Amino acid sequence: MALAAMSGHAMAAQVTVLTAARIHTMETAQPKVQAVAFDESGRILALGATAELIKRYPKAQRIDAGQATVIPGLIDAHAHVSGLGMTMLSADLVDAASKQEVVQRLQAFEKQLPPGAWLIGRGWDQNDWPEKTFPTAADLDAAFPDRPVWLERIDGHAGWANTAAMRAVKRDLSGDWQPDGGRIERDARRQPTGVFVDAASALVEQARPPLDDATAERALTLGMQSAVEHGLTGVHDAGVSLAELKRYQRLADRGAMPLRITAMADGNNEALESLCQHGLYTHPSGRLQMRTLKLYADGALGSRGAAMLKDYSDDHGNLGIMVTSPEQIAVAVDKAKRCGVQVATHAIGDRGNHVVLESYARALGNDAAKTDHRWRIEHAQVLSPTDLPRLAQMHVIASMQPTHATSDMPWAEDRVGPQRIIGAYAWRQLRDSGARLALGSDFPVESVDPRFGLYSATTRADAQGLPAGGWFPQEKLTAFEALRGFTLDAAYAGFAETQVGSLAVGKRADFVVLTEDPLAIAPNGLRNLTVQATYVDGKAVYRAK
Amino acid sequence: MALAAMSGHAMAAQVTVLTAARIHTMETAQPKVQAVAFDESGRILALGATAELIKRYPKAQRIDAGQATVIPGLIDAHAHVSGLGMTMLSADLVDAASKQEVVQRLQAFEKQLPPGAWLIGRGWDQNDWPEKTFPTAADLDAAFPDRPVWLERIDGHAGWANTAAMRAVKRDLSGDWQPDGGRIERDARRQPTGVFVDAASALVEQARPPLDDATAERALTLGMQSAVEHGLTGVHDAGVSLAELKRYQRLADRGAMPLRITAMADGNNEALESLCQHGLYTHPSGRLQMRTLKLYADGALGSRGAAMLKDYSDDHGNLGIMVTSPEQIAVAVDKAKRCGVQVATHAIGDRGNHVVLESYARALGNDAAKTDHRWRIEHAQVLSPTDLPRLAQMHVIASMQPTHATSDMPWAEDRVGPQRIIGAYAWRQLRDSGARLALGSDFPVESVDPRFGLYSATTRADAQGLPAGGWFPQEKLTAFEALRGFTLDAAYAGFAETQVGSLAVGKRADFVVLTEDPLAIAPNGLRNLTVQATYVDGKAVYRAK
Repeated sequence: MALAAMSGHAMAAQVTVLTAARIHTMETAQPKVQAVAFDESGRILALGATAELIKRYPKAQRIDAGQATVIPGLIDAHAHVSGLGMTMLSADLVDAASKQEVVQRLQAFEKQLPPGAWLIGRGWDQNDWPEKTFPTAADLDAAFPDRPVWLERIDGHAGWANTAAMRAVKRDLSGDWQPDGGRIERDARRQPTGVFVDAASALVEQARPPLDDATAERALTLGMQSAVEHGLTGVHDAGVSLAELKRYQRLADRGAMPLRITAMADGNNEALESLCQHGLYTHPSGRLQMRTLKLYADGALGSRGAAMLKDYSDDHGNLGIMVTSPEQIAVAVDKAKRCGVQVATHAIGDRGNHVVLESYARALGNDAAKTDHRWRIEHAQVLSPTDLPRLAQMHVIASMQPTHATSDMPWAEDRVGPQRIIGAYAWRQLRDSGARLALGSDFPVESVDPRFGLYSATTRADAQGLPAGGWFPQEKLTAFEALRGFTLDAAYAGFAETQVGSLAVGKRADFVVLTEDPLAIAPNGLRNLTVQATYVDGKAVYRAK
Repeated sequence: MALAAMSGHAMAAQVTVLTAARIHTMETAQPKVQAVAFDESGRILALGATAELIKRYPKAQRIDAGQATVIPGLIDAHAHVSGLGMTMLSADLVDAASKQEVVQRLQAFEKQLPPGAWLIGRGWDQNDWPEKTFPTAADLDAAFPDRPVWLERIDGHAGWANTAAMRAVKRDLSGDWQPDGGRIERDARRQPTGVFVDAASALVEQARPPLDDATAERALTLGMQSAVEHGLTGVHDAGVSLAELKRYQRLADRGAMPLRITAMADGNNEALESLCQHGLYTHPSGRLQMRTLKLYADGALGSRGAAMLKDYSDDHGNLGIMVTSPEQIAVAVDKAKRCGVQVATHAIGDRGNHVVLESYARALGNDAAKTDHRWRIEHAQVLSPTDLPRLAQMHVIASMQPTHATSDMPWAEDRVGPQRIIGAYAWRQLRDSGARLALGSDFPVESVDPRFGLYSATTRADAQGLPAGGWFPQEKLTAFEALRGFTLDAAYAGFAETQVGSLAVGKRADFVVLTEDPLAIAPNGLRNLTVQATYVDGKAVYRAK
């Protein structure tokens, strides 16, 4: 070894050759190989047959994955890392089958809290309860008369407070007034019931004691750790404040980022201003970048906050809510355009999407299809028939979350009716129109686990395989397309396809080792893929026990 | 009833309402209904919920398909009806596992032939035999010393004669000469071995006694009957002479066409001339049309007759064969363009496809993507990376046969090597590039059964499900896409999408009743769909016993 180190190869970094039963590269010209070689920095040197690479790198360190399948590292194109971490630091109310169960879970969680601290929970969904109506503060007050309780709805678009939490709000919540872009649910006596939709949530949020920096950093760390344990090597964090970016930067400086974060600036605020003043941001480690503005056009479908062109089918007179006015969107989009910043706008309802497309069309002008803008619509969930083809025409990326379709399918058609549902969760129609799909989970709204996304994308079915054959099965993707949405096309949406998203010479050795071959097993097996290990820059950031 | 007939509805034709568990319309705006109403002429009047249609047409005749699934009638975009019928009138050699088995099958078939009649067989494939080499006349001469024997290869691109058949050829077959666009296999003594590749087959074909008209018509009838028994309501017949068109016309005049035939004129010959002189042809019954020129650019991959840009990987020095020279193609294409005739050219090898694309580009000029030309490439089997995107760019339809991929997969990569195979049978890449796929079978080269095509398209696997997960699984289609290729996109390729290909008001009631739901079952079940009935113009043309 010492002699070798002195030889002509002296300056060559240590090479690793990883072999597996099959390595799906996601590269058209060489889709399947058995071996990949990468250097100490994690840059891929070669791909090919095992014998060929061993001959070429005789001194290489060997990793033999045996009968496993290797795929490029999975990238979640839309998620909330801090939110996931905070979920892990708050009471989990997902799938609670009744308000009683919510209270029981909160009581169990309360035991670890210091006296007086706010009890935060997340994940309730009235659609899971027998009565299917919004809860009230009174449902919480008996168990929690004094401790403020604040519970976020599953979709993040509504909050549920007890009376103690509402008492902490300085402004008088009674009366007829409503905040812009939100709704305070009120009873016949014009008193708040305890549910705050969309922007109204801010009234309670602002009354919470500020999050200390250590807890915030702990949330990021927990979120990222959970991500790599599920095979993710990259996440597009959809809404990061300047303070949060600085937290990420500190973690990156310490080498404490196990995966790549593409942070999006949270609206027309400080982070965007920073991009405009100092330019697009990339950390030297390659693990952190910010070059995108995240806007919210409207709310969500579950809480009927998505902005619709016509009334909700199950709520006459309700058109949903523009969280950001078309004028404010235009101002922010113009600023991003001036600064060379990519725009990614949350749009769920057909009006939300229409406003965003109009705004993009105006800002990008005739350049829309010519420049490499890569502007995105996040969710692109309900599209009118005339707007659907415009994404492809304008080269706007559809950043979609397959699990939203399978989570929403029990009630989505109730909300929008039999016509509008055709343009909802319309992956295949968008693909056929020529649009690019970047796939994600929107965790913690949905599970961080990308296996669920691959499964939903290919089956359009729930965990039990229902409805048989899938919901609107004409919109299914093949396993390969689903995988591409979570790798190469997600990378593209983050301007990172020259570095990650596929396994090719010169790219980063970001990959996942799976027991099963996701392109060979039946789609209903994708939920149960076994992640053996996750590698970023050629180093294992997660190994199954 | 008599009163009703006198009422305001007096002139209304008898309406039929068909109901089923589900009717997949293939129409985006209304993908699934439970009932369809059509008039006596077979024109669809309405689609919707059962109660709604029964209320609207209270006197309608009812057909209740119970738990069945209804889909639009399947259309085979590339097949040979007379060839299928002739197969049924000749010895079946498909899947014969050895030359000995071929001879045994021929001996069994011979019993029904009059003395002296030629023994015609079809479907041999030397790749199925232990030796995997071309056979010779001597293999047949012992069993058939006097009766001429002429056996077409599985792909129709080579024939195998015994000595008696070669004796019937007037021209001296020995020596060094070769016919244009074909090859006489010869031994060291320059004597023909008995195999005639591509255009060389014509030497033996021309020596056969002419087919009598009654037999030819019988072949068409048998072929069409077999088609409707498999759920086909339309076939694009890829090469029809003027004499054959007249045979079809006689059948159509007699009401003896159970399905719709889109006949393509067989090369730059009489049928094309007739189109140029008399205009595009449509029979008043709507069951027969001719508006297309079918050309052959090259041969087939199995017999190494497909024209390649570089040598066959398993036959150094062999570039395959242009069956029609680029100059002849240009002349024919120009004539079609002048006459407003659609062009559909057989192209298998990457050179064959390149020549066709060049020829189309030159003939269509800058209009390629603007006019509604719908020119097609038949097979589009091996495409170079630079040519693949040109189909979408020029709006050229890829008319492909899923079963070719799964039939050819055991040896296709041997023929073209690991690079060129990436652009072969590349359905998904073509779809992603924006090209339209019209699907077919090329029967009798492959089975007439479209279930096999749906299965191959979605699994890329053979009947045993091998290779596990499919061959180049990244090219798989979803069940919906496969179905669209056999319905709406095949209809489009035949300029018939306003009449058939989906179930919509004003279109023809061409549909298939299936026991299973092809969009709900797992793809490996598509081979075993149960065709209960086939309807054309609202009338059952086939019902399972």
